Amino acid sequence: MEHWDLIVIGAGPAGLTAGIYGIRSGLKTLILEEKIPGGAAAECPLIENYPGFPSISGQELISKMVEHCKKLGAPINQLEKVVELDIKGEKKVMKTERTTYTASAIIIASGCHHQELGVPGESEFRGRGVSYCAVCDGAFFKGKRVIVVGGGNSAAVSAIFLSNLASEVKLAHRRVRLRAEEALVKDLGGRKVKVLWNTELKEIKGDTKVKSVRLFDNKNGGTKEVKIDGVFIQAGEIPNSQIAREAGVKVDDSGYIIVDEQQRTNVRGVYAAGDVTAGRVKQVGVAVGQAIEAVIDAFGCIKKPYYYKG
Amino acid sequence: MEHWDLIVIGAGPAGLTAGIYGIRSGLKTLILEEKIPGGAAAECPLIENYPGFPSISGQELISKMVEHCKKLGAPINQLEKVVELDIKGEKKVMKTERTTYTASAIIIASGCHHQELGVPGESEFRGRGVSYCAVCDGAFFKGKRVIVVGGGNSAAVSAIFLSNLASEVKLAHRRVRLRAEEALVKDLGGRKVKVLWNTELKEIKGDTKVKSVRLFDNKNGGTKEVKIDGVFIQAGEIPNSQIAREAGVKVDDSGYIIVDEQQRTNVRGVYAAGDVTAGRVKQVGVAVGQAIEAVIDAFGCIKKPYYYKG
Repeated sequence: MEHWDLIVIGAGPAGLTAGIYGIRSGLKTLILEEKIPGGAAAECPLIENYPGFPSISGQELISKMVEHCKKLGAPINQLEKVVELDIKGEKKVMKTERTTYTASAIIIASGCHHQELGVPGESEFRGRGVSYCAVCDGAFFKGKRVIVVGGGNSAAVSAIFLSNLASEVKLAHRRVRLRAEEALVKDLGGRKVKVLWNTELKEIKGDTKVKSVRLFDNKNGGTKEVKIDGVFIQAGEIPNSQIAREAGVKVDDSGYIIVDEQQRTNVRGVYAAGDVTAGRVKQVGVAVGQAIEAVIDAFGCIKKPYYYKG
Repeated sequence: MEHWDLIVIGAGPAGLTAGIYGIRSGLKTLILEEKIPGGAAAECPLIENYPGFPSISGQELISKMVEHCKKLGAPINQLEKVVELDIKGEKKVMKTERTTYTASAIIIASGCHHQELGVPGESEFRGRGVSYCAVCDGAFFKGKRVIVVGGGNSAAVSAIFLSNLASEVKLAHRRVRLRAEEALVKDLGGRKVKVLWNTELKEIKGDTKVKSVRLFDNKNGGTKEVKIDGVFIQAGEIPNSQIAREAGVKVDDSGYIIVDEQQRTNVRGVYAAGDVTAGRVKQVGVAVGQAIEAVIDAFGCIKKPYYYKG
């Protein structure tokens, strides 16, 4: 079994940062990624709040971080999913689809995935008009009518992104105000995005592809059917914490991994950073900071210098 | 008196990030900087661990962050020193050398400064072999000979960190024992760190970069010249927290501002982020993450949206 000082699960901003700091601390560090590097950040059409890059696409920022990692020599094994963790002992054992590794410490940076709405038609039309990622699929809707569902930053960013492509963009939010940053809200106003307040998506209809949606007005009580070609669902996220949870890592009610100030979980030698953690703020810059804290503590845990009280 | 939603004190990575997030959150945000933007980061010859920039000078990174801030419209008043704070009321009052401002919330991001030794060659070779930060610059000395100067925790931590990278690590301390626990000696002993007792660094010599140091044996009285590639001075850091402290912000024994998970100080509406805080890890990426957390909470504190529980 290959032994590593540090294994990082996930290659989004937190995982890639952990790779950078792991290698630079002299730790033999491996990054495992079940898909390709990027995580949720790579799906972001435009990131304008990671300090140093006034405006960059998520994919471009991620490729810069990947390049950064690779330049330092941190191996990123992509398409290698971790299927089981055994973290009870001093050596953490990690079974992937390919092989089994051991590590002195691990950092879980597995992020989260998109929440589904659970409405009729949603899974039926997934990939045929229903999408969870504007940057991935927006181009399919050039000159067409789309609706974004949600009220946070990702809903607003998606609507803004789509307004450059689609002929018509609606943003349906079940409340009367958005949770998005005000800069984004203002930006919506200057574009052809029509915000539908107090509006819930109840059904997605079509034949071989999406043709319309049924919308419910939760203030006045009526429903109406609106012709549409694309539905972009931005209804929140679910942490990818299942394998960690099964291995005994404590999570909160929503499934986010609970960490302390040093990003330690309840299991010694096991850390978590980024969107999979119970922090309130899901931002690239925060994930980066958390990953740094995690590696600095993991270094202590692995090398046990005198000052490490862990 | 000019009123702002948010005033940020200091224009290093934390302060500039606070500016970016403040403006993007729709807060009327002002950054005050007593010198020019940059803080300790700008003094870093090369930063190779801020994710996304494999290798960039501190000044270049800072100028990108400044540009990022300015593009969003965050004013940075440089050469404007805050001389007095009154934070007891709802409105925080800030007296500078030029005028007086009020703000609904403030973020203190005033950083800290390194204690210098004051020996010949120290300022001349700064960034060319002389460093004050092993985590920042250690990787430049992979396989090289370095000496750490100091006897406290940060000196020992730096020596341990460097022992994973450098071919040879010396730790020079002017006394006969370190200002630390017995365990330190043991821990250093197990590594390739050679401790030089009763040794004072008297001079740093070189041409375009450091070549040697002159060491004085304060017990036996002789001096000798030792070939070296890197000098890490760990004679202490001093947080720039005096004005905050005088205004009633709680600091720890070393003068660092005490904050909670949301970067709140003991005074409502007053936040701190970056190197001026009592966190263990002083890194650009950590300062960025902390500043984001601070702004998100400050936004809640100022605008009181439905989800803010503060």
